[in-house]
Amino acid sequence: MKEFELIKHFFTKQIVKRKDVELGIGDDCAVIAPIENQNIVVTTDTLVAGVHFPFNTCPRAIGHKAVAVNLSDIAAMGAKPSWLSLALTLPDVDEAWLSEFSEGVFELCEFYNVELIGGDTTQGPLSITITAQGLTPKGRYLSRGGAKAGDWLYVTGELGDAALALQQITGKVEIDEQFVEVIKNKLDYPKPRVLAGQTIREYASAAIDLSDGVIADLGHICQASNVGANIVLDALPLSTIMRDCLLVDDAINLALSGGDDYELLFTVSEDNKVGMETALSHAGTQVTCIGQINTSQTISTTLNNKPIPINTAGFEHFNE
Amino acid sequence: MKEFELIKHFFTKQIVKRKDVELGIGDDCAVIAPIENQNIVVTTDTLVAGVHFPFNTCPRAIGHKAVAVNLSDIAAMGAKPSWLSLALTLPDVDEAWLSEFSEGVFELCEFYNVELIGGDTTQGPLSITITAQGLTPKGRYLSRGGAKAGDWLYVTGELGDAALALQQITGKVEIDEQFVEVIKNKLDYPKPRVLAGQTIREYASAAIDLSDGVIADLGHICQASNVGANIVLDALPLSTIMRDCLLVDDAINLALSGGDDYELLFTVSEDNKVGMETALSHAGTQVTCIGQINTSQTISTTLNNKPIPINTAGFEHFNE
Repeated sequence: MKEFELIKHFFTKQIVKRKDVELGIGDDCAVIAPIENQNIVVTTDTLVAGVHFPFNTCPRAIGHKAVAVNLSDIAAMGAKPSWLSLALTLPDVDEAWLSEFSEGVFELCEFYNVELIGGDTTQGPLSITITAQGLTPKGRYLSRGGAKAGDWLYVTGELGDAALALQQITGKVEIDEQFVEVIKNKLDYPKPRVLAGQTIREYASAAIDLSDGVIADLGHICQASNVGANIVLDALPLSTIMRDCLLVDDAINLALSGGDDYELLFTVSEDNKVGMETALSHAGTQVTCIGQINTSQTISTTLNNKPIPINTAGFEHFNE
Repeated sequence: MKEFELIKHFFTKQIVKRKDVELGIGDDCAVIAPIENQNIVVTTDTLVAGVHFPFNTCPRAIGHKAVAVNLSDIAAMGAKPSWLSLALTLPDVDEAWLSEFSEGVFELCEFYNVELIGGDTTQGPLSITITAQGLTPKGRYLSRGGAKAGDWLYVTGELGDAALALQQITGKVEIDEQFVEVIKNKLDYPKPRVLAGQTIREYASAAIDLSDGVIADLGHICQASNVGANIVLDALPLSTIMRDCLLVDDAINLALSGGDDYELLFTVSEDNKVGMETALSHAGTQVTCIGQINTSQTISTTLNNKPIPINTAGFEHFNE
């Protein structure tokens, strides 16, 4: 496999050219121009065929998702994505596949003005690793570690469609034909909350993106912040399709433990609540208060104001 | 697989803590502190089991090599390595394997003061992708694109041992028992020329690291610089073991087309020749002049001052 040819052909025809990239794809390293008064955030995520997506997933969706899950991490920091490195392992060279895959990668890059600055193409079982970088004004970024007792717990968008799609694909539930396309789209083409992340940066005390389900990801915030939380199950923004297709209990369970939503879960102090809600409303982002942080160091849930025991094991990968 | 536990356990016990890392491994992103008057260089390399190393390679060597090949790219830019992101795909969780692998990763990190700032651990066929970053004073970095006709062509160290080891492993040559360990060590534990790279930064006009063989990698310099080159085959720094074990012709061929040397190949103008040689000699780095850049836009070779035709196809992966 002439890996050099491959990379050149499919990955050098991008439209985005950033001023802060002095030397782009094609040398031993890319060179980034100095940035003053900014922090750089860095994240890495791998998608493995058969683990993170079914083998027959369309290449455009794989490209889209590989970028989206990384931009979602950058969104959770409140940062603006800037550069990507792409490591692509392919069983063989399939030009049609590569063309569609790169289309999926570049769509999101173009939308967010992110430049692909380097990569490596190797032969092997299909997997994609992307390292994405982003920028925030110096010292102003979100982490998992800032939540305080009394802070309100919020989530963007609606929960559960991606997990429902996985259940449908693996034959665990039957879904009305008319909804299948919609939920599969949510699974295959997640929309990272990049703009919402930058909006809440000025208001939130802690944030994380929902890749492993509300319980697991809230657990990360609680652990990093040394706090606990209560989730008001009645308040969970279950998707309309979930409400239509599942019993309420099953829908709630899926929203809590299903992964792949790529919404933002974040905490906001009483003082910042109104400001954050107003700012997100101007940005057109749906947001729901689903509970509150406390000092308990555990996660509890209530329904109709009554405590409900839950299974706190988070979703990991679809084949487990 | 509890991927979070895994990452925490093996990859958070590193010794290196850099001042410019505001938030290290464990959040959605790492956060790097602003750097003034510096360029950042970024590179990504993947090693796939069965393609870039034999399946039975010891885990410490895999960890070492995954870091080394990335640091070698940073060395070729004349930069100082600073941060690593590690994406590790594993068929299963083997604690002994992970412990040895992380030892291999951290040895080089500690030596070069490189901090592991993030990563992702996933289940799947064994492969490792590292994204490494480094720093250079603003505007002062090497690329493949600066070679000019008349510049001298240099290479650090000796050539061919790693390729010879691959030939021995795949049964293509028989090597005396006493040498096998030495050449296998060169293949498994390549030493990236990090210090030499920073030394030649002030003198070289173009540079690349030798991962695909002299012909292929010189081809990249010639293409990027829009020049040609002549290699004086008599001058190639063949390793002592290669000279002992192979006919001269075979040794030269292996040095030209064998990969995995991770030496630096670079060009220097007549004016900078003495300065570069003196500086590298102070740094204790062996360096050999192996030819000269010309305007031909092709690569030629001479032996005993006579032109010799060569096969210009470079080495790619050992299973091809």
